[in-house]
Amino acid sequence: MAKRSFWAWGHESDEPTARQMKTAAGELANRYQVDLTPVVPPKSGSLSLRKPRIIPPSSLAAICISDDHDRAVHAYGRSFRDRIRAFNLDFPNPPDVVARPRNEQEVEAVLEWCASYGYAAIPFGGGSSTVAGFEPPEGYDGVVTIDLEGLGRVLEIDDVSRSARIQGGVYGPALEDQLRPRGFTLRHYPQSFEFSTLGGWIATRSGGHYATNQTHIDDMVESVRMITPSGPWESRRLPGSGAGPSPDRIAIGSEGILGIITEAWMRIQARPVFRASAGVTFQTFASGAEAARRIVQTKMWPANCRLLDPVEAAAAAGMDGANALLLLGFESAEVPQDELIRHAVDIAREAGGSIDDADIRIADSSGRSFVGDAGRQGSVGEWRNSFLNAPYMKNHQAGLGFVTETMETAVTWDKWPTLDQAVRTALQDALDRVCGGGTVSCRFTHVYTDGPAPYFTFEGMGRLGAELEMYAEIKQAASDAIIAAGGTITHHHAVGRLHRPWYDQQRPELFAHALKAIKRTLDPNGVLNPGLLIDV
Amino acid sequence: MAKRSFWAWGHESDEPTARQMKTAAGELANRYQVDLTPVVPPKSGSLSLRKPRIIPPSSLAAICISDDHDRAVHAYGRSFRDRIRAFNLDFPNPPDVVARPRNEQEVEAVLEWCASYGYAAIPFGGGSSTVAGFEPPEGYDGVVTIDLEGLGRVLEIDDVSRSARIQGGVYGPALEDQLRPRGFTLRHYPQSFEFSTLGGWIATRSGGHYATNQTHIDDMVESVRMITPSGPWESRRLPGSGAGPSPDRIAIGSEGILGIITEAWMRIQARPVFRASAGVTFQTFASGAEAARRIVQTKMWPANCRLLDPVEAAAAAGMDGANALLLLGFESAEVPQDELIRHAVDIAREAGGSIDDADIRIADSSGRSFVGDAGRQGSVGEWRNSFLNAPYMKNHQAGLGFVTETMETAVTWDKWPTLDQAVRTALQDALDRVCGGGTVSCRFTHVYTDGPAPYFTFEGMGRLGAELEMYAEIKQAASDAIIAAGGTITHHHAVGRLHRPWYDQQRPELFAHALKAIKRTLDPNGVLNPGLLIDV
Ligand SMILES: Cc1cc2nc3c(=O)[nH]c(=O)nc-3n(C[C@H](O)[C@H](O)[C@H](O)COP(=O)(O)OP(=O)(O)OC[C@H]3O[C@@H](n4cnc5c(N)ncnc54)[C@H](O)[C@@H]3O)c2cc1C
Ligand SMILES: Cc1cc2nc3c(=O)[nH]c(=O)nc-3n(C[C@H](O)[C@H](O)[C@H](O)COP(=O)(O)OP(=O)(O)OC[C@H]3O[C@@H](n4cnc5c(N)ncnc54)[C@H](O)[C@@H]3O)c2cc1C
Repeated sequence: MAKRSFWAWGHESDEPTARQMKTAAGELANRYQVDLTPVVPPKSGSLSLRKPRIIPPSSLAAICISDDHDRAVHAYGRSFRDRIRAFNLDFPNPPDVVARPRNEQEVEAVLEWCASYGYAAIPFGGGSSTVAGFEPPEGYDGVVTIDLEGLGRVLEIDDVSRSARIQGGVYGPALEDQLRPRGFTLRHYPQSFEFSTLGGWIATRSGGHYATNQTHIDDMVESVRMITPSGPWESRRLPGSGAGPSPDRIAIGSEGILGIITEAWMRIQARPVFRASAGVTFQTFASGAEAARRIVQTKMWPANCRLLDPVEAAAAAGMDGANALLLLGFESAEVPQDELIRHAVDIAREAGGSIDDADIRIADSSGRSFVGDAGRQGSVGEWRNSFLNAPYMKNHQAGLGFVTETMETAVTWDKWPTLDQAVRTALQDALDRVCGGGTVSCRFTHVYTDGPAPYFTFEGMGRLGAELEMYAEIKQAASDAIIAAGGTITHHHAVGRLHRPWYDQQRPELFAHALKAIKRTLDPNGVLNPGLLIDV
Repeated sequence: MAKRSFWAWGHESDEPTARQMKTAAGELANRYQVDLTPVVPPKSGSLSLRKPRIIPPSSLAAICISDDHDRAVHAYGRSFRDRIRAFNLDFPNPPDVVARPRNEQEVEAVLEWCASYGYAAIPFGGGSSTVAGFEPPEGYDGVVTIDLEGLGRVLEIDDVSRSARIQGGVYGPALEDQLRPRGFTLRHYPQSFEFSTLGGWIATRSGGHYATNQTHIDDMVESVRMITPSGPWESRRLPGSGAGPSPDRIAIGSEGILGIITEAWMRIQARPVFRASAGVTFQTFASGAEAARRIVQTKMWPANCRLLDPVEAAAAAGMDGANALLLLGFESAEVPQDELIRHAVDIAREAGGSIDDADIRIADSSGRSFVGDAGRQGSVGEWRNSFLNAPYMKNHQAGLGFVTETMETAVTWDKWPTLDQAVRTALQDALDRVCGGGTVSCRFTHVYTDGPAPYFTFEGMGRLGAELEMYAEIKQAASDAIIAAGGTITHHHAVGRLHRPWYDQQRPELFAHALKAIKRTLDPNGVLNPGLLIDV
């Protein structure tokens, strides 16, 4: 198996070459009119971590590893902050042991070991957290990170109900590979798809492919099985239920503090063969937002309804930097989507959008010959490629003092213009103050009848060695603005350690007490991912 | 305000006349080939309840009532069992006081009174529970039923986000009346719409108008405000969130054990003007089910996709008793629905369904002249009228020994044929044993990509005076069959006292412990609706 990079997005083979780093440095130097000296990326051999403080019992030795590379891979997620720290070989508090259980019995055994010694037990899926979701806590004698890659199989496919029983540790591509031969797909594509897992998605309420209707993994969960320190928690497979509060909705979003999600029955679907897409341009982001609002409020439920502001449209879809772009897409395994896309385009035009009829792309691969290629061409296709590539590109920009990150939220439509204004101002002011300038952009990743999920990107040229403080100041300003304007600190990236201060402001106080009470019931020794969501 | 009947569905004016009861008795006598003597319905004046055991403090006197009629209205819901007991003036354990708070301060004051004396505090919405959801518990010195009709207003409408802040005690028709002038609707129509409330719907996860996609009230909740004995619990208004487990999903389905839902922001919508409907006949229920499955799995999300078996199709839509009927309906406020209904009909025909093209009804009331009348004509229209009328018709059949009830569940498609078989057999066997015969029928009220929500109706001629034991035996047999076959004891009628034994078999054991822990946090004295969902 290819070795994961301990600092970059992807495998070691995805780490940038000296040449790529030079190109990136050149581009940034040009953009910011500064001199930049590209550095050589760190190598695994240079790692020198704190010695493991604990030794697994012999019964667990076979599934436990404590080498430096492995512990470094499991120390940080993949946010800007993580990348910089890892790039700098800065690992003051790595896990002591990485355990890789191969079945539920071994999951239980690891939890028992941690519970009896009071070690922190940290569930780890694909490691793609951007919120320090599995970063080891301070103040423990030992930290055991539980990597679930050993639970990587689709165990059962129920064709008629279109559901599958899937293990929690399966990565996106492996999951799809196991469904494909039967003609099915989960069709949950977070941008981190390649390096994230089903269990991680459920634990963080991740947001995927669908821009409307069933946006979060939540809606695709039929039942969950979770191993808690107090025993297994497994809900009944049901297509719908009204029997008391939903047990699944407690596991969904629990961020590893209540148990380890080992399996779930997931709703799957036939692979789409009818597609229709359109990239509609707008003179302003606001008029594009109006179109997105009207379209989602029709409840036609487009699969794609992503709005890029002029900055993002230029960067990701090759546009001119003056116009916003609304990416519309419909898809179906059974029904042609021509009518729907035309209705959506009509509404977009009424709201001020432009698109040539010829640029509405309709594809039908249901028959023998493939007609059209909706979603793979033109501005829509360009956006798609850049979406998948983006995380790798960031690898190239490390070690230059460059500060960049994304922030995502959701807010009702009535508050959206104010939130947009407030967050952009907060980000721009902070960038000006901290970096002497920079760029802010925004897109909608998902839209609901009652509001959008805006996704902000900021960047500025910071000072090498001071990036983390600079980043913290900017992130703080924008997070405060989001909460003050009525947004959520996260629509799909989860809370983690990073968002705790703002999460604490938005959730009902009594809910925190309730969650603590649940935690005490399921994890009486408080070993699972301490410090996430609540204090105990 | 019209006075509610203490035993019948509706107001006192809806109680059946002697003539109506005679007609009903005649019909049933004919159907079962027995002699039946119609009785005179009981009158409010004959009520003689246990004297109230407690007296409200003077500060609450203005909102508390203890007269017999009012306490009888609040003693039982509206199941078969409730109707028979009330009809028989059988009220051994009525509430002592009915409190009608007019605002949250008064809700708090009532809860404080109950908490300090250890009285049971029972939230009451419209009183339409069919599962003994608010029936007073035994073993308390006092029982205070908290009727929320005083919280009956739509407080705020946010046009742009299509959401409204609505008080928990508002009844269905009053809710729609307040939204209509602004062109909006919640469009949540349980069959009990006239006599049920928003707070009750949320507390019970009620299922409404939509047969697919957003079936439960759950999906329409943007945020909830609940007064608990430990203080207010209010979530942030958000169109979507990934910040920890959803606080709303703990309130939704809590059946009055955690707090009193006083307000919620609900997702509303424009009133539909484009409609399309079709009633497709099938030679067997199984082929109709296959069509429903394929249609819902296309994700076209019809508003209606209800399948009636031959018995129900005959009774409710005037069909011949040999064929099943699939009622399909699409609707939209913005987009014509012709294409969608045609696709759905095509799929239904492929699965063996028949319908003349001329019977596909398309309506467009978007312009000045109203074209078509989809959903108000033909088999679809007949079904609609009988749906709304059904609860009233049952009033006429009391006092004759007649035993009838409905049971609803949800199950994945793979288990559906077995469940259908098992439940029908259990019901028919029990009817044969208990009543010497009877009828069983089934329809799908909702369908999901992964399974249907079947709704069984049974009836048999029992013995006057023994109906309750007869009913209990039949209900037990069918409930056991549902659980054994992998269904849920309720898809939308809630758990209540009635379904507790089966609910306890289906929910994760650890979830019950978690719920107890939440309950202790929010309601430390255990006064709210004791005995529902968990024991404390
Ligand atoms: C480049 C990039 C793009 C991203 N794009 C998206 C996106 O489009 N949508 C989106 O939603 N997120 C996105 N994210 C965030 C991240 O990918 C998600 O939060 C994802 O769901 C995490 O899954 P994972 O398997 O990597 O979990 P990890 O990062 O390993 O863990 C995340 C959290 O879940 C817990 N956890 C993991 N597995 C389990 C388990 N089996 N049982 C219990 N707890 C567990 C961990 O303890 C931790 O708290 C992105 C991240 C990156 C770096
Ligand atoms: C003829 C008939 C048809 C029906 N059809 C449907 C249907 O189509 N779909 C469906 O889902 N159900 C249906 N039901 C069941 C019932 O109508 C639902 O459960 C409904 O949601 C109950 O609402 P209510 O306001 O009447 O609540 P009640 O019956 O008054 O109370 C129900 C439960 O909720 C609690 N509760 C009520 N209000 C509050 C509040 N504000 N805060 C906290 N707890 C509260 C009560 O304590 C109780 O446990 C039907 C019932 C009948 C009699």
